[in-house]
Amino acid sequence: MALRGGLPTESGFVGVEGVRLVEEALRSGCPIQAVLFSESGERHRDRLAPLIGRPEMGFPVLHTTDRLFEGLADTEHPQGIAALVQPRAATLDDLLRTPVSACAPLIVVLTGVQDPGNVGTILRTAAAFGATGAVTAASGQSGTASPFSPKALRASAGAALHLPILSGMSLAILLTQLKIANVRTLASSVREAQEAGQPVFSPWEVDWCESVALLVGNEGAGLPEEIERSAGARVRIPMVSGVDSLNAAAAAAVLFYEAARQRNSLASPPGKTKP
Amino acid sequence: MALRGGLPTESGFVGVEGVRLVEEALRSGCPIQAVLFSESGERHRDRLAPLIGRPEMGFPVLHTTDRLFEGLADTEHPQGIAALVQPRAATLDDLLRTPVSACAPLIVVLTGVQDPGNVGTILRTAAAFGATGAVTAASGQSGTASPFSPKALRASAGAALHLPILSGMSLAILLTQLKIANVRTLASSVREAQEAGQPVFSPWEVDWCESVALLVGNEGAGLPEEIERSAGARVRIPMVSGVDSLNAAAAAAVLFYEAARQRNSLASPPGKTKP
Repeated sequence: MALRGGLPTESGFVGVEGVRLVEEALRSGCPIQAVLFSESGERHRDRLAPLIGRPEMGFPVLHTTDRLFEGLADTEHPQGIAALVQPRAATLDDLLRTPVSACAPLIVVLTGVQDPGNVGTILRTAAAFGATGAVTAASGQSGTASPFSPKALRASAGAALHLPILSGMSLAILLTQLKIANVRTLASSVREAQEAGQPVFSPWEVDWCESVALLVGNEGAGLPEEIERSAGARVRIPMVSGVDSLNAAAAAAVLFYEAARQRNSLASPPGKTKP
Repeated sequence: MALRGGLPTESGFVGVEGVRLVEEALRSGCPIQAVLFSESGERHRDRLAPLIGRPEMGFPVLHTTDRLFEGLADTEHPQGIAALVQPRAATLDDLLRTPVSACAPLIVVLTGVQDPGNVGTILRTAAAFGATGAVTAASGQSGTASPFSPKALRASAGAALHLPILSGMSLAILLTQLKIANVRTLASSVREAQEAGQPVFSPWEVDWCESVALLVGNEGAGLPEEIERSAGARVRIPMVSGVDSLNAAAAAAVLFYEAARQRNSLASPPGKTKP
């Protein structure tokens, strides 16, 4: 059982570590191959007991020494608890199926996002604001970091196990299929309107209640120009002059928030008046 | 000239590294003690020449070998260009002075934000969305990371040199002074309304056109309860159920975006219709 590296094993299982992520894995409904406790990890057993003890779970609970666990672990100060979990293998149909809680599909397409921490943070943010699925794709020279690496899983706070994710899709095929499925594609752009030669919309000018797939590009370069041009529209977060751009995860958070605000899909705390 | 550590030297100067940050430092108008090129850093000289060559700049331009530079540098692959810069020492009055571009002061108060990367990212985001100043304060046990450490400066993309920042302020004194100055304090909360025992507003329910100071707390624990209670109001970003919280920098981005959207302070690209 190797926790390092984080790419799915041949059987499609990935290692997750730490009490919070193991808890998320057990809650996600994804198949579990095994749960592993080290000696000092046993102290988390009570917290996980209700999830591990259920008869339908049917996976082995293994034990090891702290020293062996540290050898397997990807983190510096491991908590002594890990699981091998098989992330949901989503299809595009899964992503397009509208959950009862959402008015229409809201999909995030990561293309060329290279930092695993950014991939995880964007998935966490997307899930928090009601995205219905995610795609990781390659664009031009640059692939997208695996959403299931240890760093991406940690940054996602487990969202990578809950959100349906289609990984390693070809962007050209995806764009065609989204067009057929009548899903509007929006390119998150860092280009000025004059540069783009076509309208660039502010987030609040976009109708986010439609079926939308938001394309998010590379941290430094953004989306390739030909991808932006082939998208249904471009959206750019206006900023005070003199500031170049936002961090990729911060920009994604702003766009998903605007979508959620318009969709009114977020539970509002009861009993308030305007402050 | 030490670039490591990043805390201001006795003279108040901090080291910044890399062509982009040095450019920002030279543009910021902050006093510069010296600029340093290594042999391989000389290739960036042309880009910086318009900023270095001006007679009113009056600081020495120093030269060193690549080997010596690598010994001084804080980054693994240094670009061979650095500067010693003195960040603006802002007063609360500076922060409260409304620039012509803003309808009212919009101040971010970081209290207990411990990760230098988060401090820098939040400052970058605040600046991008028109914040007029920032305060770094300590709350309870936990201080806020210095905005002028190399990691925070890099994550801020130079915003820490442009935005007026009051650092190391006592939170109790600050809250009193903000009250006297008629600035509404808003606590960014991760607590549910029932838990808080007082109204918790969604971002779009807050009137951001008033003078506002937004309090942002520790990455894990948020703001201490007594600080939230003493603030003028609490604001919480509603999320889909099952998701605990957003990353601190993502949450700050959402709140500043909402402020900018309401203040209508962002330049809108011309010539658009609703997509």
